[in-house]
Amino acid sequence: MSNQTPSLGEIDLDAFRQSGYQLIDWVADYLTNPEQYPVLAQVEPGDIIAQLPTSPPAEAEPLADIITDFEQIIMPGMTHWNHPNFFAYFSSTGSAPGVLGELLSAALNINGMLWRTSPAATELETLTLDWLCQMLALPQDWEGVIMDGASMSNMIAIAAAREALDLQIRTKGMAGRADLPRLRLYISEQSHSSVEKGALTLGLGQENVIKIPTDDNFALDAHALQTAIEADLAAGYRPFFVCGTIGTTSSTAIDPLSAIADLAAKYKLWFHVDGAYGGTTALLPEMRHHFDGVERADSMVVNPHKWMFTPIDLSVLYTCHPATLKRAFSILPEYLRTAEGDAEAVKNYMDYGVQLGRRFRALKLWMVIRAFGQEGLAARVREHIRLAQQFATWVDESPDFERLAPTLMSNVCFRACPASYQAQGEAALDQLNAQLLDAVNATGQIFISHTKLRVYSLRLAVGNIRTTNTHVEAAWQLLNETLRRFVDSGMGSG
Amino acid sequence: MSNQTPSLGEIDLDAFRQSGYQLIDWVADYLTNPEQYPVLAQVEPGDIIAQLPTSPPAEAEPLADIITDFEQIIMPGMTHWNHPNFFAYFSSTGSAPGVLGELLSAALNINGMLWRTSPAATELETLTLDWLCQMLALPQDWEGVIMDGASMSNMIAIAAAREALDLQIRTKGMAGRADLPRLRLYISEQSHSSVEKGALTLGLGQENVIKIPTDDNFALDAHALQTAIEADLAAGYRPFFVCGTIGTTSSTAIDPLSAIADLAAKYKLWFHVDGAYGGTTALLPEMRHHFDGVERADSMVVNPHKWMFTPIDLSVLYTCHPATLKRAFSILPEYLRTAEGDAEAVKNYMDYGVQLGRRFRALKLWMVIRAFGQEGLAARVREHIRLAQQFATWVDESPDFERLAPTLMSNVCFRACPASYQAQGEAALDQLNAQLLDAVNATGQIFISHTKLRVYSLRLAVGNIRTTNTHVEAAWQLLNETLRRFVDSGMGSG
Repeated sequence: MSNQTPSLGEIDLDAFRQSGYQLIDWVADYLTNPEQYPVLAQVEPGDIIAQLPTSPPAEAEPLADIITDFEQIIMPGMTHWNHPNFFAYFSSTGSAPGVLGELLSAALNINGMLWRTSPAATELETLTLDWLCQMLALPQDWEGVIMDGASMSNMIAIAAAREALDLQIRTKGMAGRADLPRLRLYISEQSHSSVEKGALTLGLGQENVIKIPTDDNFALDAHALQTAIEADLAAGYRPFFVCGTIGTTSSTAIDPLSAIADLAAKYKLWFHVDGAYGGTTALLPEMRHHFDGVERADSMVVNPHKWMFTPIDLSVLYTCHPATLKRAFSILPEYLRTAEGDAEAVKNYMDYGVQLGRRFRALKLWMVIRAFGQEGLAARVREHIRLAQQFATWVDESPDFERLAPTLMSNVCFRACPASYQAQGEAALDQLNAQLLDAVNATGQIFISHTKLRVYSLRLAVGNIRTTNTHVEAAWQLLNETLRRFVDSGMGSG
Repeated sequence: MSNQTPSLGEIDLDAFRQSGYQLIDWVADYLTNPEQYPVLAQVEPGDIIAQLPTSPPAEAEPLADIITDFEQIIMPGMTHWNHPNFFAYFSSTGSAPGVLGELLSAALNINGMLWRTSPAATELETLTLDWLCQMLALPQDWEGVIMDGASMSNMIAIAAAREALDLQIRTKGMAGRADLPRLRLYISEQSHSSVEKGALTLGLGQENVIKIPTDDNFALDAHALQTAIEADLAAGYRPFFVCGTIGTTSSTAIDPLSAIADLAAKYKLWFHVDGAYGGTTALLPEMRHHFDGVERADSMVVNPHKWMFTPIDLSVLYTCHPATLKRAFSILPEYLRTAEGDAEAVKNYMDYGVQLGRRFRALKLWMVIRAFGQEGLAARVREHIRLAQQFATWVDESPDFERLAPTLMSNVCFRACPASYQAQGEAALDQLNAQLLDAVNATGQIFISHTKLRVYSLRLAVGNIRTTNTHVEAAWQLLNETLRRFVDSGMGSG
């Protein structure tokens, strides 16, 4: 078809085909046994970059050479989120169907900014987000839009709330305006940092992000929320946004959505629900009681790339006010106008957020939902919760460890508290646990992370599609053995 | 290795392997001959979604069925950015090495928020952006960070400029503060809409984004910029940011960077350069004179996903003030603290933007640069410019068409102006050209877009890795034949 001279155009596609087969085999082998690698990369800062040329090659290099370097230089510097012993942060994995979706998406390489620039990308996004809405038993009149991650989804929700104030902030901005009230947002002390980052990016100021205290279970204290709102109103502030979380980052606490919804209604606040991680548990009928009140939210985020086996990145922002979102963000230069857009016959997703360029992300989610089925996804999430509950039981039964928060989902917050250290006070226990964390992670056998829940807390999160009983048992054994060595040596330094 | 029950865990990886081979073949065939498809999807709104089930499947479905639906239902709804006759917007293609990079990135599925969460991802990002900086002959002390797209890069640049004002906007916000000046930004009438969107997202207000008039070549008029700044200062505004563009969206005009740099220095503005598309031309020594003055910029964006054959998404924001970027965006909750981060022994890229979650995007860029080589990339970009110049010559030599802007890069702005229509005035010519656009796009043979350059303008952009002489010639022929039919029928409606 082409009279392209060989030195221009695409690379030789037979070479692509051969390397492609090779990499499919590599991926299959890798996903079959990621345990061949240490879970946390065992390298020092600078180790990887030191092995690579400081300048780019002038001439083309064979794919085979690049793949060899990938295996020999890059791979030893990877931390393996696919490893079944990855228990850190929110343990997140993709899945093989999602990988195939990304392969196709990269090959098609479309920008779905407009319906016209790939109708199927827009329509599959609408359809798949409608499926997900059904799967999570969310209100069926909500509309979704795919964002890259929850940082963006949270920020966009705040921006929509700001637009809903009708204070002409879009047109006139906020700086130097005598007519604007001081705006305030409410989150909990346990809300994710991205909500705060979204607010400061939007020019609302960190000081105006009020962090409401939490109860003994690390859930937002609705009474304290009301007190804070009343105090701010009395001081002349304008409260406009509140965020409740289903599954906080530190301990997967669940904020009291109904009570927050009541206050949001009373004080006319935009009510946003951050379900980036925990929203996925709505797949399970037995978890849905936690979501009571979500139907009164103005927006909600859930991230299929966190706990629905969809490769990073894919976050979904749902809202019952899509027109407000569009009013906040739509800009239509001549070069993006289309007849079908002018006629409002289609949805152009570029109108619903900051980003004009939009990858074809819906494809991988559609493939994941179909390849596992709604029941299959639910079964996996249920199993992860079961594994975490089991680990929590072991902690509770151990004289050397204690749990630091309820285990409502698949994340266990705990610490070592051996009898010989308890008399030394909290600082010593904090130090012991920090050293325990470093020691178990340094083995390369497991990767856990930490947080602060009044005291220093270890976190073990189950969310990896390959994690089984065996892995959780081995993690528990490693923690116990390592602690015993610490205790036997009479010091925290092991 | 695993005692997973078959009904949980990952899908069967032998099935993945077989489907993977099949899809590698499919991608190779597709990229060999995207011309088997109409370039612009020939479907009506709703055609695709109507063919898909309205509810998700309860049970898992075989990969083979999903792939069949992809081919039979999704593909007919795609607009083919890979088609060599895709001349719309900024024609952008990925490439086979980039597709392999995305395959690996999806399989690894890491989140590079922290160095620790995959050291090689962080270090390869640093290295590859340093390579790119060298390739584009940009100042070697600039530091880069990968963003998803230029909308985000532009917004982040404005946010850094806002932080550099030292007005405590991060902490105190902007609403209701009597001590804040009214902030103003300067772009040109031809700047990309994303700069304006970034400003309004940040709460700066559309009215404070001052669109400076352009000269006859659609480049920012530096004298008008100075006049606007002086007028704003006299009126009590605080100018703080100016954006110059290398390759505007409508006509790839090039703003006078040196003159803007002079004014930015004089008035202490943050000087941002939007080279999302045109920045890539710095690969060519013969184009570098256009970049004189860029070395005095505070930040610059260039998008390898636009004209460097890297699959969407990958935008790079360079700045000589990385500490300001970090001051604007870094938030460090306990659960993201690491020993190496606290010691400042590593770069944690989450600190340099809004998004916490970060895909392993550097991998595909590293593979693209190596697979084509610096010279190979430059040769392709040079060829695209040559093809566009050739098309521009045909327009200039035709009695029926005229060029509407200089062709400095690979994008030709032109319109039909047959003698029989000229007497009918501008409105008739606008209508004729809009109808010509629709008619040629409806053939499925080519896809071009339009803009407004005082009058309605057609745009033909060459940037696809598969586009050759033959394609550009055929596009020219189709435009001429279609116009002739219009003229012969005596009306614009064809």
